[in-house]
Amino acid sequence: MLDKIRIVLVNTTHPGNIGAAARAMKTMGLSQLVLVEPKIFPSPEADAMSSGATDILQQARVVATLDEAIADCQLVIGTSARSRHIPWPLLNPHEAAAQAAKEAQSAEVALVFGREDRGLTNEELHKCQFHVHIPTNPDFSSLNVAAAVQVLSYELRMRQLADAEVEAPYWGVDWDIKLATSDEVERFFVHLEQALIDIDFLDPHNPRQLMPRLRRLFMRARLDQVEVNVLRGILTAAQKPLKGKSD
Amino acid sequence: MLDKIRIVLVNTTHPGNIGAAARAMKTMGLSQLVLVEPKIFPSPEADAMSSGATDILQQARVVATLDEAIADCQLVIGTSARSRHIPWPLLNPHEAAAQAAKEAQSAEVALVFGREDRGLTNEELHKCQFHVHIPTNPDFSSLNVAAAVQVLSYELRMRQLADAEVEAPYWGVDWDIKLATSDEVERFFVHLEQALIDIDFLDPHNPRQLMPRLRRLFMRARLDQVEVNVLRGILTAAQKPLKGKSD
Repeated sequence: MLDKIRIVLVNTTHPGNIGAAARAMKTMGLSQLVLVEPKIFPSPEADAMSSGATDILQQARVVATLDEAIADCQLVIGTSARSRHIPWPLLNPHEAAAQAAKEAQSAEVALVFGREDRGLTNEELHKCQFHVHIPTNPDFSSLNVAAAVQVLSYELRMRQLADAEVEAPYWGVDWDIKLATSDEVERFFVHLEQALIDIDFLDPHNPRQLMPRLRRLFMRARLDQVEVNVLRGILTAAQKPLKGKSD
Repeated sequence: MLDKIRIVLVNTTHPGNIGAAARAMKTMGLSQLVLVEPKIFPSPEADAMSSGATDILQQARVVATLDEAIADCQLVIGTSARSRHIPWPLLNPHEAAAQAAKEAQSAEVALVFGREDRGLTNEELHKCQFHVHIPTNPDFSSLNVAAAVQVLSYELRMRQLADAEVEAPYWGVDWDIKLATSDEVERFFVHLEQALIDIDFLDPHNPRQLMPRLRRLFMRARLDQVEVNVLRGILTAAQKPLKGKSD
């Protein structure tokens, strides 16, 4: 189960934090680390702070964008320090571990951590099906990123150890189709946005909150692969009468 | 409750760990730190690693022996990395937090953490009523002492929040819009079906499983009233170019 769960660190500034995160992961049995545009990596400071978890650093994947880091994932959970403008499904770390463990049976899962100083952007958070909030002291919420990785990795390990018992699947049966990956879902959103422009529903010069609202709707539905294909088929059909109209 | 629980660090070698432990405590709402014979304290490195939790460092009590640190405590829980020669009541971090929280109603409680390289001695562990073991990877159990403080402080905070029954709402805040009624959802499905026929995506003579699939998708998303209006607006926009085409 823990093999299917990756830790994604976005734009980490201090290499020591990357090393400490690797150490935190390894103590809890996690091994997959993905770094989105780290400021400095590899680095001796990361190695030193990993305290022997250098195998995790050596195998770490470095990518340019969050999209790349989560492209093949069916479940993406982003860490969020505060409540957001548009509400999103919010889990505590215990619940997030339960969700991740359940889905890791049959899917690729990512836990995404933001920058030291300002976390994840709203745009990044909107690529996640769930947000997880570590319930910090409101007067001092300055949780180190490696400490956040430690808390969530710990909860994952606790869940793995507890997972001896068999739970009834959430949908009554196993879901019949594979869930769509982040990449498939993102391409659907690109198509959706273009189609809404084509049918004059979305004004690209005044988009307001339309796309975030639709994104939230479809993210919480957790689209499967057939559904993505059906929805894109609908979009193509809606665009067809307009072809040749304006060009 | 958290005011009655002290964190005791025994013979810490690296002052940075003391600072990181103070930070971990403060993020979770703990404030009482007791240092048993720290190698270097106070120190600028501790201050730097506390990342602003300097009040905890300034108020920290420095003592010469563990006995002194726990003298007025009714409950002492010691962290233990491995199973010991003489079996002792052993809790996991979740259980330890429950025990500490329960007793902190009416007693002073200490959580005791050992040296970076070899933890607590057997003699020290035998001054505790309970041991707590953070379930690390058997192949890599090198948990940083501040990370251990983070995990246990986190569990204490989770327990405190659970006891106060202030559970975070599922959406981070209360959902901002009323959920749609069945009636509104059904009228949306009627509109959807008609629009799909209009754009030649749905053949009414051979509908197959299209509508049940779309129904399942939108039912599990739990549409709110704004979303229903947005979706129906999209349907109307998609139908518009076709008006007058066939009639």
